[in-house]
Amino acid sequence: MLMQSPAIFSAKPAWAPLGVKALYRTSSGDSNSMAAAVPGPKWAQKTITLPPHRRGCHLVTSQILREIRPDLSEFKCGLAHLFLHHTSASLTINENYDSDVRDDTETFLNKIVPEGRSAPWKHILEGPDDMPAHIKSSMFGCSLTIPITDGRLNMGTWQGIWLCEHRDAPTARKVVVTLNGI
Amino acid sequence: MLMQSPAIFSAKPAWAPLGVKALYRTSSGDSNSMAAAVPGPKWAQKTITLPPHRRGCHLVTSQILREIRPDLSEFKCGLAHLFLHHTSASLTINENYDSDVRDDTETFLNKIVPEGRSAPWKHILEGPDDMPAHIKSSMFGCSLTIPITDGRLNMGTWQGIWLCEHRDAPTARKVVVTLNGI
Amino acid sequence: MLMQSPAIFSAKPAWAPLGVKALYRTSSGDSNSMAAAVPGPKWAQKTITLPPHRRGCHLVTSQILREIRPDLSEFKCGLAHLFLHHTSASLTINENYDSDVRDDTETFLNKIVPEGRSAPWKHILEGPDDMPAHIKSSMFGCSLTIPITDGRLNMGTWQGIWLCEHRDAPTARKVVVTLNGI
Repeated sequence: MLMQSPAIFSAKPAWAPLGVKALYRTSSGDSNSMAAAVPGPKWAQKTITLPPHRRGCHLVTSQILREIRPDLSEFKCGLAHLFLHHTSASLTINENYDSDVRDDTETFLNKIVPEGRSAPWKHILEGPDDMPAHIKSSMFGCSLTIPITDGRLNMGTWQGIWLCEHRDAPTARKVVVTLNGI
Repeated sequence: MLMQSPAIFSAKPAWAPLGVKALYRTSSGDSNSMAAAVPGPKWAQKTITLPPHRRGCHLVTSQILREIRPDLSEFKCGLAHLFLHHTSASLTINENYDSDVRDDTETFLNKIVPEGRSAPWKHILEGPDDMPAHIKSSMFGCSLTIPITDGRLNMGTWQGIWLCEHRDAPTARKVVVTLNGI
Repeated sequence: MLMQSPAIFSAKPAWAPLGVKALYRTSSGDSNSMAAAVPGPKWAQKTITLPPHRRGCHLVTSQILREIRPDLSEFKCGLAHLFLHHTSASLTINENYDSDVRDDTETFLNKIVPEGRSAPWKHILEGPDDMPAHIKSSMFGCSLTIPITDGRLNMGTWQGIWLCEHRDAPTARKVVVTLNGI
């Protein structure tokens, strides 16, 4: 009966702990048929490979959802964790509509992280774009955690997932996705 | 009996996995009375609306705790995830005592992200403060994950939760809070 | 039998939810012997103290693994959360091989965050390095979430955990580690 209340896991200002605890106890009971009706805590983990993107900021929400949507739909409430396996690119959440916002963000990153002859870097063996790429990666970060609500990523209307490629040479990028919830 | 050991979930350098596993098995047993005595894994999710704040950095720890403290108290060990639904503000953890630290941080953000006639932005339709706001949002991030220990957010003595409002026009901001633990 | 499939929790592009759910139901069944064979969801939390490090960026992956490796090995799939209890240092993930990358990152941070007589800060009571330290802490952040796969932190080949000490006076730093998974 708790499952019949959409408010339990909705993003509306209504707490769920008792509901969740009740659901949890039900799902952890000894009846498989009940467990089927009321899913218990689940973990899922997968490595996604994003195709090469040119240097700059790119909206990749749909590429990522294409890989995880069917699995997301199994979660009423939880968290999705994305972890980029690289140190010269980053993941961030920002505006999902106007590509100028992505271009301007790339302009900003190039403006504050010196590159080329004027740069003070010691680490230059991998090319002039490498050390700036490492710095940009720590500025924006390589990991995101996004709430899951009713089988969907619970982001704001204007939010999207960006892959920021900081190297000149486009390469495929790996993202470990971990889903956890009920 | 494991429940009687405060060390199990304390922040002292003492590991909990066996304790937690034991508790977990107990809670996932088939006796409801035991489940009542030893709570099992719980998920809770809620959307909080923070009232409009003027442009700048603001300490919002107490505003957030006011909304979640009763629910936090149900968790012995876990994680609290806060996710801001916007791309022109940010959440960060920083000093909780001297408001000068918040003012100086705002000074820094305005210093390194150009705004107005001198700025190179293409995205200007929403006003001169909009593109800088998006950049600042990715610099500090829109999401926080904080450990829960013994029913409280386990932060350092001088740590607090900041809402950084990067737009000139104050607007209410939504935060999705997800609690997960035992 | 699901336990016999290494693909279930591997980082290969193979989803695990059904496997996990099945495992979960097994582990939450009423047979302790099965629970021993198939561990259920676990939580562990510990506070690690990192010894004082000089101002700059430091690779601390091995220091942290020394404290958590035995416990990590109990998790097939999960997340490791690290939370620094301070506002004048940061945790970030970046290159794990060439110490020049750490030195250059420190050079960058000092370049963009003004310090000393030229700095516009109001918060100066704790020394000229204090306000810059707070700003750097919010730029890189005080918290990391890293996937756990097959008992190990699932990071990229070149990724490592950095402690960035932003104060001149080295002090021990506390990190709350929370492990959650199956």
